[in-house]
Amino acid sequence: MRLLMGPGPSNPDPRVLAAMARPMVGHLDPYFLQIMDDTMSMLRTVYRTENHHTIPMSGTGTSGLETIMLNLLEPGDEAVVGVIGYFGQRLHEMAERAGATVRVIEEPFGGVIDPQRVADEMAKRPAKLVALVHAETSTGAAQPIPEVAALARDHGALVAIDCVTSLAGMPVEIDAWGIDAAGSCSQKCIGAPPGLGPVTFGPRAMEVIGSRTSKPFTWYLDLNLLFQYWGDSGAPKQRAFHHTAPVSSVYALHEALRLILEEGLEARWERHRQAHAVLVQGLERLGLSLFTPAAHRLPMLNVVNIPQGVNDAAVRSAMLERGIEIAGGFGPLKGKTWRVGLMGVNADPERIETLLGALEEVLREQGFGG
Amino acid sequence: MRLLMGPGPSNPDPRVLAAMARPMVGHLDPYFLQIMDDTMSMLRTVYRTENHHTIPMSGTGTSGLETIMLNLLEPGDEAVVGVIGYFGQRLHEMAERAGATVRVIEEPFGGVIDPQRVADEMAKRPAKLVALVHAETSTGAAQPIPEVAALARDHGALVAIDCVTSLAGMPVEIDAWGIDAAGSCSQKCIGAPPGLGPVTFGPRAMEVIGSRTSKPFTWYLDLNLLFQYWGDSGAPKQRAFHHTAPVSSVYALHEALRLILEEGLEARWERHRQAHAVLVQGLERLGLSLFTPAAHRLPMLNVVNIPQGVNDAAVRSAMLERGIEIAGGFGPLKGKTWRVGLMGVNADPERIETLLGALEEVLREQGFGG
Repeated sequence: MRLLMGPGPSNPDPRVLAAMARPMVGHLDPYFLQIMDDTMSMLRTVYRTENHHTIPMSGTGTSGLETIMLNLLEPGDEAVVGVIGYFGQRLHEMAERAGATVRVIEEPFGGVIDPQRVADEMAKRPAKLVALVHAETSTGAAQPIPEVAALARDHGALVAIDCVTSLAGMPVEIDAWGIDAAGSCSQKCIGAPPGLGPVTFGPRAMEVIGSRTSKPFTWYLDLNLLFQYWGDSGAPKQRAFHHTAPVSSVYALHEALRLILEEGLEARWERHRQAHAVLVQGLERLGLSLFTPAAHRLPMLNVVNIPQGVNDAAVRSAMLERGIEIAGGFGPLKGKTWRVGLMGVNADPERIETLLGALEEVLREQGFGG
Repeated sequence: MRLLMGPGPSNPDPRVLAAMARPMVGHLDPYFLQIMDDTMSMLRTVYRTENHHTIPMSGTGTSGLETIMLNLLEPGDEAVVGVIGYFGQRLHEMAERAGATVRVIEEPFGGVIDPQRVADEMAKRPAKLVALVHAETSTGAAQPIPEVAALARDHGALVAIDCVTSLAGMPVEIDAWGIDAAGSCSQKCIGAPPGLGPVTFGPRAMEVIGSRTSKPFTWYLDLNLLFQYWGDSGAPKQRAFHHTAPVSSVYALHEALRLILEEGLEARWERHRQAHAVLVQGLERLGLSLFTPAAHRLPMLNVVNIPQGVNDAAVRSAMLERGIEIAGGFGPLKGKTWRVGLMGVNADPERIETLLGALEEVLREQGFGG
């Protein structure tokens, strides 16, 4: 048993784990088709969108982001990607592999993209797609998505966001912000096991996908084929076989979404916000500071500076011996920071106190504090 | 509760479903890293291979086949694909999307490829890859893989097979047959829930992948990146993050593989063979015949001719009302055949009698027999 306070997976609610063990049914069973429809509907609520084309991809969150890039982009297309950390770099890499010419707008780890830079870049030369990460898991920073999206759309671009870490833990407003495509994961603030990549595509994105001049390089993640199984908007459902859906994982996601709706999405955002405040206070009490500037800190993923003289790996393994997982830093922040996640059921004051108590003990053993 | 006697998912053993609900751990937790190593080792046993590069891809069986095509093929490569049904057509499509020039050797639904045709095709012009389906799920036919593989290798080609339906239910001998790459699924004869795509890559395949001149179009399924997480052969394990592994699904696969090794792989093949014999006898008793010629019938996937005047959909839904799933035909066999799967725990005489009893009743209601 672990208390998972890294960047995910987080601990699923017991109801969600129980759903994983439900009896198997076929992927074309009327019972399962209803679960699929319900899952699409609840995902729309969580994404705050009316987009029909809202489904969990049969792969992890990464597969959802690749779905966006390989379906929206064709060889020769232009894309602008905002990079403020590892997961932005990954979007850049995926867009290039989809055949696009990519222009990168970059900020050093810890910063966020100034929306005006996106507008300036688009004024120089238009692009088909602007893509960026909402909540950058490697640096703990939240980007100003509504502002970027508005400017990008003004310049005629589609807007895609990675909301792997943000969805269900802080405001994500697909329709209100004018986002054309977004991808997330199952194992962070949604609170299911890892394995699914919820995505949503708006009408402008689906129009672009429907009028491609070449087939996507991927067959597995080809949305035009997938919606013959999940059901296209307006058309009578065909339910044509594409691949065998991961039935148990969809059960679990379905149950996790039910829990979110029972709690209320806005109440859940607020719970994550409050949990963050509890953690920040506690860290200050221990004499620890956060890496990410307060102006754009994420609530659910906190990047903590490792104090001088404290051994990163020793602390993390001593924490794990106490049953608590926290994560190391990423890229240039490796060895310099820890990443503490407060996601789903773990955005909870009692669990945060457990974490802080253990961390205080472990740091004292390392000769820090007390 | 369903008795799943279609083409998969099959019913997992209760021990496997229980594994799905085990407490979550992190994807870099030492406990999980051990589960990963054990899973690789057991998959090698089931694939009958020494290939280090044997892992479950984080997607369904389809993702494993796409992994093969997108990693082995580069734009401009030549491939020969043997097509005897829907799943062969799918390999063709995937190879084309990977950028290859594909030559197809085709047989009508029900037939299998004559190995000599592969040799003749290769004599005309060499190819980098020969790919075909071992057990064609749309027609119930088993292809002569050892003969095709030997001839293809004689002509200098890599050989890749789709053994989605065959693996763990009939002999699949990766090393003895000289197969360079193979992909399967978790939910058929292996007996886990759907969601993972076990693949294996031999040294010749990995050499080709290591010396590509272009990056694969896919980042999610890029093997060079993935083995930095799963561990490369010889090198010290880096365990670098690539994507968050679907922990619960890997637990379930691990447990399913343990069950296979407890039973013994060869005993499991024999059990599937015997189950097939029981089914064929029973179908004959009911006056039903099989579509697939006896010479190349699969044990675990039986394509049954629908008798004249019997309503396909009515029978399948009456069976489902009795809690038993069988599947309809595929492509040109739609409405003309049923597909009856005997996979994993369902390759069992008692369950087959349950199926036959229900089918007899339902057919009698339809005015057929008795």
